[in-house]
Parts: sequence; C-alpha cells; structure tokens
Amino acid sequence: MKSLEWRDKALVILDQTRLPLEEVWLELRTPEEVAEAIRSMRVRGAPLLGAVAAYGLALAALRSGAEDPQALLSDLKKAAELIRATRPTAVNLFWAIDRVLRAAKEAAASGQDVEGVRSAVVSEANRIAEEDVALNKRIGQHGQALVPDEATVLTHCNAGALATVGYGTALGVIRAAVEAGKEVRVIATETRPLLQGARLTAYELLKDGIPVVLITDNMVGYVMAKGMVDLVVVGADRIVRDGVFNKIGTYTIAVLAREHGVPFYVAAPTSTLDLTRSSQEVVIEERSPEEVTHVRGVRIAPEGVEVLNPAFDFTPMRYVTAIITEDGVFTPEELLAYYG
Amino acid sequence: MKSLEWRDKALVILDQTRLPLEEVWLELRTPEEVAEAIRSMRVRGAPLLGAVAAYGLALAALRSGAEDPQALLSDLKKAAELIRATRPTAVNLFWAIDRVLRAAKEAAASGQDVEGVRSAVVSEANRIAEEDVALNKRIGQHGQALVPDEATVLTHCNAGALATVGYGTALGVIRAAVEAGKEVRVIATETRPLLQGARLTAYELLKDGIPVVLITDNMVGYVMAKGMVDLVVVGADRIVRDGVFNKIGTYTIAVLAREHGVPFYVAAPTSTLDLTRSSQEVVIEERSPEEVTHVRGVRIAPEGVEVLNPAFDFTPMRYVTAIITEDGVFTPEELLAYYG
Repeated sequence: MKSLEWRDKALVILDQTRLPLEEVWLELRTPEEVAEAIRSMRVRGAPLLGAVAAYGLALAALRSGAEDPQALLSDLKKAAELIRATRPTAVNLFWAIDRVLRAAKEAAASGQDVEGVRSAVVSEANRIAEEDVALNKRIGQHGQALVPDEATVLTHCNAGALATVGYGTALGVIRAAVEAGKEVRVIATETRPLLQGARLTAYELLKDGIPVVLITDNMVGYVMAKGMVDLVVVGADRIVRDGVFNKIGTYTIAVLAREHGVPFYVAAPTSTLDLTRSSQEVVIEERSPEEVTHVRGVRIAPEGVEVLNPAFDFTPMRYVTAIITEDGVFTPEELLAYYG
Repeated sequence: MKSLEWRDKALVILDQTRLPLEEVWLELRTPEEVAEAIRSMRVRGAPLLGAVAAYGLALAALRSGAEDPQALLSDLKKAAELIRATRPTAVNLFWAIDRVLRAAKEAAASGQDVEGVRSAVVSEANRIAEEDVALNKRIGQHGQALVPDEATVLTHCNAGALATVGYGTALGVIRAAVEAGKEVRVIATETRPLLQGARLTAYELLKDGIPVVLITDNMVGYVMAKGMVDLVVVGADRIVRDGVFNKIGTYTIAVLAREHGVPFYVAAPTSTLDLTRSSQEVVIEERSPEEVTHVRGVRIAPEGVEVLNPAFDFTPMRYVTAIITEDGVFTPEELLAYYG
C-alpha cells in the first residue's frame, strides 16, 4: 500500500478523507495545494507529513521563476513558512522542512547554480521519502520481537502505511510480526472525531488480510478488563523529554493499559524525537468544532453546543513501557540516555 | 422536559432516535409496538424502560379480549414475555413488569372482575411513572450535596429526563445543584456508538440553559489530566453486589477518574438494584455491528470489518466513590449493608 507518489512535477497523494469508501488520488502541483491537503487532513500521520512537506518544497523549487540561488532560497523560505503554519504538533513536518532547506543552502554554498539547487531540493525530498519506508521496516523488526507468537494488539488512530510513506510504524510492528509467522489479531479503536481507526487502519489491515476487530474508543476499558489485549502499540506525533504527544485518546488508552498490566509501546522514527523540549513547550492543535458535532457531514449534536476538540493529547513517560525507533527498543530512561 | 405521556388508550413517546434534529412523538397502541420501540431504542434509559414496559402491559390489558381475570392474566404474561425479551441488561424493565403482574394477580386474587384487574394494571403503570419523577427529585436532593458551589461535572450517555419519566438521575443531581444556586458546568461525552451524550444530554441541558461542553469519548483522559473535572456522575442499568452495569464506556471513565483522584458517583433509583446477583450472572447485550460501522446511517468503516458492540460494561465497586439513591448517599459497603 502506498500513500504518495512523486511524478516529475507533481506530488500524487491518496486523499485519505475519502477512505474507505473511495480511493481518490489527487495531483498537487503547488506548495499552496500541499498546505491545503495537510490542513484538510487529506494526508496525515507524522512521518507522512514530513515527506509531503518536503515534496511541498520540491514543488516550490520547480515552480519558482528564480534565476539565481539566493532568489530560489528566498522562495523556498516562503513556501516553508506556508507549510509550517498548517499544523503545529507533529514535529516531523518541521524536521523535514529544515532538512530540505539545509540541503538547498548547502548546494548554494557549494557554488551550485539555480538548477543545481533545484535538483538538490528534489533529491532531498526523494531521500526523505525513501528513507521513511526503510526506517519503518527497521522499526518493525525491532518491535516485532516484543509481540508474542499469538497476540492481540490494540492500536489507536492510524500509524500504518497511510500515516507514512509505506509500511507504517505501529502497523509496521504488526506487519513485521505477521511476516515473522506470528498469529496477530488487531483491535482498532475507531478514533473519533476523524475516525482514522475505522476508516484507515481497518481498511489497511483488511487489504493486507490481517485480522482486525473495530471498537469504539470507549470500549478500550471493556476489552482490557476482559483480558482481550496482550499489548498496545501506537505511533507518535512528537516525543519530548517527559512523554509522548499522539492522537487524542492515546493517553486514555495508556492509563487503561497500566491499570490492566498491558504493555504500552510507542513506535516512531527518530525524526519524531524532540528531546530538547518538554511537554509545556508544545502547542496542542485545536481543530474545528464541526469535527465533533458532525460525522462525515451529518450533524449529530444540537446547534449551539460548545465543543472541545484537541487533536492530540500528552502521555507522560511513566505510562510508556518502551519506545521503538529504527535503532532499537528503549525504555523512557534509555531513550533519553541514548538520544538526549 | 417529558419523555412520555399516557393518553387513555395510547402511550405517547418522544422518539429519541430522531433527537436532536427532530422532535417526533409516536403513539404506541399495542405491546408489540412497545417492544419494537424498546428494541430500536426509541425509548432508552433504565428508569424510562421500567415505565414504558409497565405501560406496555397496560396496553395489553386494555386490548385483551379476555372475559375473565384468569384469561386476562394469561394475556398479560404473554405480553410480559414479549417485552422482557427486548433488552437483557437493564433490571428496571424486569422489576416494572413483575410489579405490574403482581398488581394484576392481587386484584384477581382479591375477587376483582376482569375490568377491575384491567384497571389495577393501568393504575400500577401510572403509579410507576409518577413515582419515578418523585424518586429522581429525591436522588437529586441527596446528590446535589456532593456538588461543590462551583463545579464541572462529567457525565456519560444520557441519565437525564430523557432516560427517565422526568428530571433524570445523574442529570437530576445536576439539576438539583443548579436549583440550589450552584454554578455547574457539564462535560458530556458523546457516547458512541449511539451518541446519547451528543444527541440527548447536550439537547436536554441546552434546553434547560445549563452550560454543557461536548467531547468525544476518548477526550476523557485529556480533560481529567488538565484538571477540568471535579466529579463524575453517571446513571446505571443494573447495580449488583460487586459493581455497576452501565452504558459502554462507563468503566473506562471510572478507571480514569480514580487515576486522577476525581470522585465517581452513580445515581440510580433502588429499582436498579439487583444485589442478590453478582456480575457473573448478568448478560451484557451485544447489539448490531451496524451501530459501530455506521453513524446516523452513514458508513464510516470498510465493508467486511469485524466489530465488537457490547451495549454495557461493568465497573467494579472499587472504582465507585458512592451510589446515590432516593434514600441517600451510600459507599458500596454501606449500600450492601442497607439494602443487601
């Protein structure tokens, strides 16, 4: 399963807001179109946002009329600002933009002409996308060692192929366990308000033939109390010194996991790490009330009701059993010692 | 706000599946129509189910062509079986049916003719409905003493006027606190799959002018971690020796409440008590997968995905701070000592 394709002068993305009912591919040709796709969550998932943001700069480079490297760098910075302003929480977005800008600056500094800088930008975006799949496979390899031979894994939101360039982080762990011959069954939480679990995780796993059972978010306590869950694996939008930012609902699951003695794992590439920061320094994005008062365009709540809609929550490290990166499996203490 | 009205030979109910978008009143004239309304959750909420079931027997009595008391009792038993088979978890349904049947038998045993038995049945149903509102006001009085002068109360599902004949149990506590001059704000969980929080609790509180904020079920951890919740009050479908059966999601909230030091209260009339039973003896109703894969008729999950859909969950007594009945406020131990 692929979530994007780079075709010459266009970034082609699977419009995830239309899944699972329709598979619609969109051609994005400008950084503005990329920013809109991110804001509207046509693409989502921290690692995928990194790759898409990088390609947004590639499109800016290709469309720029700049005739010298400095003018091109200035156009790239404008595009970077536009894309940075789309979503504040996932750190991969900022990481990828910084990486592409650095590649452009280095090319310019090394005496490349404007075409050379353009091609350095496109190459760096391609590299970010290619690396992502390879990193996810390494995350999967490290993580699958934690999965028993027969296991039910609970996951939240979608940290799968659709949240990355391919293979997935949390679902990468599950895929690697299946490839290693283990009997894995998944319980997917639907993940209100935008239903990434029901729409994307269920879709992705059904396509791959991995057994999946869909539950509403409020059934997590029930399935854990019944002893139906062997471990939890989720992705992350940003990992700071004191804990993990991830899709709203993750913290609720982490508390329940600890209460029931169920291991709680976070799978994420190192581009998700932001270990110089603590949770106080991170802005949690508040999204539109309509995401809560409506489901797929249908109103479910009375007009005029007040709503909270934080897109993410924060899970303190004391609830996290281990974090799985492309480099290995780390307890929170080990993670800080290794990367801090 | 009223949820039903008894009009001569018909039970008139507010069709709760149409709320909050439409206020549609339905006239039910047969026990079969009553059973359908219960099964389809046009009426729901344990105390309301008791009153509706009682009126179902009243309709059976009025429509029966029986010419002697014994034939009427036999018709009533058939109607009772039909209504008992609709939903297995809320104990009030069984309690109300037993109470009406007992009134019929006593009338027959005391030498009443068939008309006398008919009228005994109708009177008993009316009594159950009238008592319910009075009991809820007493629950509210006892419960409001637990609410601080300024407080945010989190509630789940709908344990309001719409779950009872009027006033509500959990929302009765909130109404009584407001009537006592306290500044109360409510956080209502939307309560997937059937969205009773978003559709009914939000509607009911907005109508009454009580401030309400709607959240998705998976935001409970977030709001508690932010210190936004002073206490939780929920209703109950059945209270057994070792804990409380209530709408799916209640247990998840109870675990989070204990983790955050937030008091967790259950408000229910004594007709909800079933203290001779333990949780092992209670069947949790599994409802249709479409309730999870669809929202208000709109498909949200891929075709063919497996689903869990328990309508209720079980919260062990160790998570319950106190239970509020019409007789007072009881810790779990006190409840067993008083009623057990």
